Amino acid sequence: MGDVGEERNGVCVSGGKTRVLVVGGTGYIGKRIVRACLAEGHETYVLQRPEIGLDIEKVQMLMSFKKLGAKLVEGSFSDHRSLVSAVKLADVVISAMSGVHFRSHNILLQLKLIDAIKEAGNVKRFLPSEYGMDPSRMGKALPPGRETFDEKMEVRKAIEAAGIPHTYVLGACFAAYFAGNLSQMETLIPPKETVNIYGDGNVKVVFVDEDDMARYIAKTVNDPRTVNKTVYVRPPDNVLTHMELVGIWEKLSGKELHKTHVHAQDFLSNMKYMEKAEQAGIGHFYHIYYEGCLTDYEVGEDEEASKLYPQVKYTRMDHYLRIFL
Amino acid sequence: MGDVGEERNGVCVSGGKTRVLVVGGTGYIGKRIVRACLAEGHETYVLQRPEIGLDIEKVQMLMSFKKLGAKLVEGSFSDHRSLVSAVKLADVVISAMSGVHFRSHNILLQLKLIDAIKEAGNVKRFLPSEYGMDPSRMGKALPPGRETFDEKMEVRKAIEAAGIPHTYVLGACFAAYFAGNLSQMETLIPPKETVNIYGDGNVKVVFVDEDDMARYIAKTVNDPRTVNKTVYVRPPDNVLTHMELVGIWEKLSGKELHKTHVHAQDFLSNMKYMEKAEQAGIGHFYHIYYEGCLTDYEVGEDEEASKLYPQVKYTRMDHYLRIFL
Repeated sequence: MGDVGEERNGVCVSGGKTRVLVVGGTGYIGKRIVRACLAEGHETYVLQRPEIGLDIEKVQMLMSFKKLGAKLVEGSFSDHRSLVSAVKLADVVISAMSGVHFRSHNILLQLKLIDAIKEAGNVKRFLPSEYGMDPSRMGKALPPGRETFDEKMEVRKAIEAAGIPHTYVLGACFAAYFAGNLSQMETLIPPKETVNIYGDGNVKVVFVDEDDMARYIAKTVNDPRTVNKTVYVRPPDNVLTHMELVGIWEKLSGKELHKTHVHAQDFLSNMKYMEKAEQAGIGHFYHIYYEGCLTDYEVGEDEEASKLYPQVKYTRMDHYLRIFL
Repeated sequence: MGDVGEERNGVCVSGGKTRVLVVGGTGYIGKRIVRACLAEGHETYVLQRPEIGLDIEKVQMLMSFKKLGAKLVEGSFSDHRSLVSAVKLADVVISAMSGVHFRSHNILLQLKLIDAIKEAGNVKRFLPSEYGMDPSRMGKALPPGRETFDEKMEVRKAIEAAGIPHTYVLGACFAAYFAGNLSQMETLIPPKETVNIYGDGNVKVVFVDEDDMARYIAKTVNDPRTVNKTVYVRPPDNVLTHMELVGIWEKLSGKELHKTHVHAQDFLSNMKYMEKAEQAGIGHFYHIYYEGCLTDYEVGEDEEASKLYPQVKYTRMDHYLRIFL
């Protein structure tokens, strides 16, 4: 990459506004990041990829961003020049490329984005698509779900080798996929009668409302305290065991659920009969709910989002679950 | 069906509020109908089908409806009793089941809904999924696209045989699929350099902003003037030829497009090499842009939406297209 010098100190303000480019802005977390960046007052650019084709929901989402004040920038991963031009517009690049097997799995496409950032030479901060488990701590994760972590580490390696200032924001389970369903895998709404509890259900897990995650991201992009650091999202009131989460719902709904405790061996035993996407899901659930991979370490020299940004009144799970009443 | 008597006169007010059940409420037009019914002040119920499964966008859409004041009602097309129970909550049932080949094609599922409405016996108005070309005028339509019309006519036949008071709302092209792309089939945004013009481009077509369509629907459900009638959506300023539509965009963008006039024979000639969904699309475009099937008749004894509801300030296409500037 070009000579970057001291201006790349992570404080990314130009003319009072931070210019942010969101890549993957029509995706599940990306759309929230776009809205949060706009709400935060950033000059927000969203990559508009020709690949959206006839997907009317994505086209209309892009237009809704435009109505909110975002600027759409055409670009494609199969056109390096277009990526360089897009990147040149921004101080900060945020990637929200999907990295889950049951949706699309595009983590490594980010290597092309990194090439563009290297060539453009102007980017003061890059946030790759992270947001979940910390890949640097998942070296022993189960296949095939470990692909997600291996690929994220490959992306990090490329970022760090190129000396691109960066922030990794991660560390919590998205509430819609893990809390609204009381962590049941086959549904996205609370079960009515019975609930599977993973092991004794006493392992600490971290939940986050996706909109809060996006707010933390929007706040950290020009925060000098988080350059080249990991920002762990671990809002203290949302560090809950599976049993505590279920208890919150039982209290809200006024109905006790029948609990079936699932032993780790039984949980893993059916994996071999499953499709790859399901296998990946089982592995991830195992690391989270049995091994406690989100809470078995201290934040240490890195940062924690709710401490950095106490002004974000993050959503507690008792509030989150109310919508299902 | 049960004895319905005079209370089924189509004026569906109970306690001051019309109770509306929307089936297909998470779909492309359905979501707009739900929001329009809420905005209109109707007591709005939305069928929540277990089939949404792990579709987080649909789950979150349902929850957003709830936040707006809608009531979710669980029910499934594979559980007749659940449909009857859902229908019993409402004065009006609006169906927005998808009927296009490139999405899902569920028109005939509505026969099950009609069975439930017959059994429930309380429904004062049913709006089946129509909203596009008038199937009663498409008896000579090209296969395979004609399936849409044939199936809609089968549904109408069942409704009318059962004596269910009904309204058919239809007659315009959804702007997002027909106007935003200047009626080009391979994109949903305006082309930059060249545009295909169908024939001489002088056939009159009708465009409607989908949100306006939903507003008209929400207004007509308890309007005694529209019982057992077709409400044509033909807002006069949105009756435009293809050339006029392109001209509006050229004026807005300040750039003239290169026009390639496509003869009818050429337009149809490649159909045999296409997938079924594409074939259906080609047929529909042919009827609209070459044959003028939306405008080659008078509304006559039926009703026209913008005349019935002049308070709806419908979106003109010069305004609609601005978002793409």
